[in-house]
Amino acid sequence: MRYSRSFIFTAKENPSDAEVVSHRLMLRGGYLKKTAAGIYSYLPLAHRVVRKVEAIIREEMEREGAEELLMPAVLPAELWEESGRWHKYGPELLRFADRHGRDFCMGPTHEEVITDIVRQGISSYRHLPKNLFQVQTKFRDEIRPRFGLMRGREFIMKDGYSFDADDDAAALTYEAMYRAYCNIFRRCGLQFKAVEADSGQIGGSFSHEFMVLAKSGEDGIASCTQCSYAANLEKAVNANTWQCQPQGKPEGKRAHTPGVTTIDELASFFNTEDSALVKAVAFVDSKDQVVLAFIRGDRDINPVKMERLHGDDLHPASTERLMQAGLEPGYLGPINLPQGITVYLDNSLHSLDQLICGANEAEYHITELNPGALAENGTFADIGTVVAGDHCPRCQSALEIVRGIEVGHIFRLGKIYSESMKATYLDRNGKEQLMVMGCYGIGVGRTAAAAIEQNHDDQGIVWPMAIAPYQVVICSVNPAKDEATRQAADNLYERLSSQLEVLYDDRNERPGVKFIDSELIGIPLRVTVSQKTLSQNSVELTIRRTGEKYMQPLEALDAHLRDLVRMQMEEGS
Amino acid sequence: MRYSRSFIFTAKENPSDAEVVSHRLMLRGGYLKKTAAGIYSYLPLAHRVVRKVEAIIREEMEREGAEELLMPAVLPAELWEESGRWHKYGPELLRFADRHGRDFCMGPTHEEVITDIVRQGISSYRHLPKNLFQVQTKFRDEIRPRFGLMRGREFIMKDGYSFDADDDAAALTYEAMYRAYCNIFRRCGLQFKAVEADSGQIGGSFSHEFMVLAKSGEDGIASCTQCSYAANLEKAVNANTWQCQPQGKPEGKRAHTPGVTTIDELASFFNTEDSALVKAVAFVDSKDQVVLAFIRGDRDINPVKMERLHGDDLHPASTERLMQAGLEPGYLGPINLPQGITVYLDNSLHSLDQLICGANEAEYHITELNPGALAENGTFADIGTVVAGDHCPRCQSALEIVRGIEVGHIFRLGKIYSESMKATYLDRNGKEQLMVMGCYGIGVGRTAAAAIEQNHDDQGIVWPMAIAPYQVVICSVNPAKDEATRQAADNLYERLSSQLEVLYDDRNERPGVKFIDSELIGIPLRVTVSQKTLSQNSVELTIRRTGEKYMQPLEALDAHLRDLVRMQMEEGS
Repeated sequence: MRYSRSFIFTAKENPSDAEVVSHRLMLRGGYLKKTAAGIYSYLPLAHRVVRKVEAIIREEMEREGAEELLMPAVLPAELWEESGRWHKYGPELLRFADRHGRDFCMGPTHEEVITDIVRQGISSYRHLPKNLFQVQTKFRDEIRPRFGLMRGREFIMKDGYSFDADDDAAALTYEAMYRAYCNIFRRCGLQFKAVEADSGQIGGSFSHEFMVLAKSGEDGIASCTQCSYAANLEKAVNANTWQCQPQGKPEGKRAHTPGVTTIDELASFFNTEDSALVKAVAFVDSKDQVVLAFIRGDRDINPVKMERLHGDDLHPASTERLMQAGLEPGYLGPINLPQGITVYLDNSLHSLDQLICGANEAEYHITELNPGALAENGTFADIGTVVAGDHCPRCQSALEIVRGIEVGHIFRLGKIYSESMKATYLDRNGKEQLMVMGCYGIGVGRTAAAAIEQNHDDQGIVWPMAIAPYQVVICSVNPAKDEATRQAADNLYERLSSQLEVLYDDRNERPGVKFIDSELIGIPLRVTVSQKTLSQNSVELTIRRTGEKYMQPLEALDAHLRDLVRMQMEEGS
Repeated sequence: MRYSRSFIFTAKENPSDAEVVSHRLMLRGGYLKKTAAGIYSYLPLAHRVVRKVEAIIREEMEREGAEELLMPAVLPAELWEESGRWHKYGPELLRFADRHGRDFCMGPTHEEVITDIVRQGISSYRHLPKNLFQVQTKFRDEIRPRFGLMRGREFIMKDGYSFDADDDAAALTYEAMYRAYCNIFRRCGLQFKAVEADSGQIGGSFSHEFMVLAKSGEDGIASCTQCSYAANLEKAVNANTWQCQPQGKPEGKRAHTPGVTTIDELASFFNTEDSALVKAVAFVDSKDQVVLAFIRGDRDINPVKMERLHGDDLHPASTERLMQAGLEPGYLGPINLPQGITVYLDNSLHSLDQLICGANEAEYHITELNPGALAENGTFADIGTVVAGDHCPRCQSALEIVRGIEVGHIFRLGKIYSESMKATYLDRNGKEQLMVMGCYGIGVGRTAAAAIEQNHDDQGIVWPMAIAPYQVVICSVNPAKDEATRQAADNLYERLSSQLEVLYDDRNERPGVKFIDSELIGIPLRVTVSQKTLSQNSVELTIRRTGEKYMQPLEALDAHLRDLVRMQMEEGS
């Protein structure tokens, strides 16, 4: 493609509203154009990247026996009512009525639709397994869309769904999808990690997230320094074996602490460490019942673990609700509680010989509390967020914390949807059975954005070869003044573009402008053609990732470029 | 792909709600699953067809210099307000509010979005021309969706938009797109016609529709029997040279005609032909002004030509509105009209020596009216629908009427959108100019459906090779009983699927079931492997289109199949 013909418009200035690198570089590099909050056009460069990611996904999904289809974007409420999600799903589900007043939504995920399709087609065990996927534009009405393609409202997603006869077969399919996902992200040239994850709103018993590792990642990952264990911080298990020598009195000692309500204030009031205190966090569940969580003062309660333990959604409790329940905000503690409060205690409290906690009475804390008294007041569990150095649940080695960007998620759904939507088949004995489902998503645009978060420098994007919009850029130096250079560059473009994906910067711009643009856009290999290089029967070759630069004789150029492309593809960079 | 593994479920019965062949066969053949009225899932077979059509479109668009991008599906009201279409567009535009209450719509077409993108990027004549397209799922809230993919609400469309510096350049781009479209439909293996068309809601001065010819086509096409002229009946020009010998009196003769109000009644009352009478059709325009049209009794008023002539939308006038204007429904005529009525007269009235028409008075018509009196009462024009035998506007030969299905439409938009949305550039002299636009659509799913309307028989679909979901189907006869046949078919599948697109019907079903399914699904070439064929070291080959059947030695099979595929591709069938 000739640059002059292509729709590429780069910007010198950083856009003011782009907070993350990928968003900034995609706007500056002419990859994206914002149409509304969280809604973007994929300009030709971005479209090329997205189509390459899609092509890799298709190949690997098909290799594992999955088949592509395309479901609707606009979905009728009836199907979502059948699964119960029409009412359960929050305002991210964009709901609207058609001209006849019938309720519809923009599908952010397609479990209901695929289950409806499959239950109609499949009647016998002989029809199983089936594994179907689609690549589709989806919509999720994020309250605060940001970070460009990272958290947009409209986004391109590959979503796949599998149907098996039983759990064993479903486990094999899950493994196949795990394998496909590893191949996909490896082929995209990304450093990634598959981590155990919480299943969230989709439901199901077991899931893995695929995380592209990047310092800017939104998600924390607890990763074992010795074994292969890795889990999202939302889910990572803390296997520390806590020990203490209980001291103090069963009822503790009242201390007058007017205006001392935060952990910081408390630590300085008692002249001690955060780790010697008890921290309280208050929630209400979906029935508006108060749920209190207590943890060692230097640690944080993990709301996702809390929800899983409690088996219900939890939201922060308001001051009013706490007072109505007979509680004193700022002075919450695990003893002397009013009736009807559910209490969870993090295992980390087992490390304290004696406790300092709220007295459940205004302006009072309790000190010298013997921890032996706690177990009868609530349930001990692992409800804190893991920190570096905590023990791995598999091998007890130290965990480390890294950051990642979630680009894929695979779930074992089990029978949730086949049960609510009656997706059954007849087994070998003619007995009706529920199908066992799995679902498998990849954020396509997000993968492109994550690739940039992981691969960039001060000059711009450094695309992995496999998903770069073009493999090679040819820059002609002063083509308007120097006809021989123009002619040579034209010829080179004609010749190379039948073998490689070439962007030909034929613009009448200064070489510096062309170099800056090619680095911003991030094309892996640059071929510079000038009077000087031609006088040596050569071109200058620049490797974007390393900055390496050398003269390359014209005659061996084609094969050399093909080799470089192949090698970079294989290295995954 | 193995049939047993693929998601293909055919039905014996015709679905009750499918009125047209393509809809019926796509439902029966396991191509489509309805999710809501006018909203379908493309099951794997359909998805393969759609992707092939898309691939052909991409290649031909890119060959003519167009570049692909992807714009959002959900569009903010602001952009549509800028062009004025937010209020102009009817209820087919699906409008809704996001969670913050901001207005959006599902984009049925993307002139506004692309103009917004281009006006931001392009500032100089050096950036022009640009030609951009996308392939996207779109939504149009049809009041009565039907005919499957023919008139669905959610549909896949290729829409392209071009930007040129001036009319001459825009004309060249239009020609390039005309050429691309001809290549696309030719390569899809379709019989089609490019016809002159009305520009409708998109606007613009000039357009061509691409029609797949089929008896079931919704659109009528006037096509010259001698020259290349072809036009949609909505637009086709009638070049008949009408002549008459005016007779009768300037004021005619009143005739009492109680209860005689239709053309049929009038013809029998006066014992004459429809062609001797004047037919009246009454409209109101957007300002609620009454507009009357008169035409020879055997012909029909063409509402699209009327709107174009009147320069405004027209709707049928109600009885009340006519009486309020001092008119007598059933007795409308072109003379003695009250003030303030706009009158158009079809040129066909020039063929009547004397007229029989309504008297604009209850229960009276006028006979023996001299046509010479008419010209001062209204405007003569070509406002009728062409019929077979009318004269071609290019060569005066007879027109014939054929039926077609619109699958593509190209428009010269001119400056409509660049003016309302201020898409300008600086010309060579530094002067600001409006860009000249064109737009170019193809209904992707519709093309697949139209292909079926044109290519089917009693057994099912007869796909053109280029867009068939698979090129070859292998049917094994009694594989469960006959291990040698199963083994041979397996081997053949392995071998052929590296060279061709093969569906392998490996099911444990009777041969008759397999043959019926393969014909319903419409795979162009069938290879049958049985004990009998293997005993002759052969397979049986069946050509879907011709029904031709013959034994083919196994050793020459691969090359023979490749030849057949190539030949059918080249023939476009």
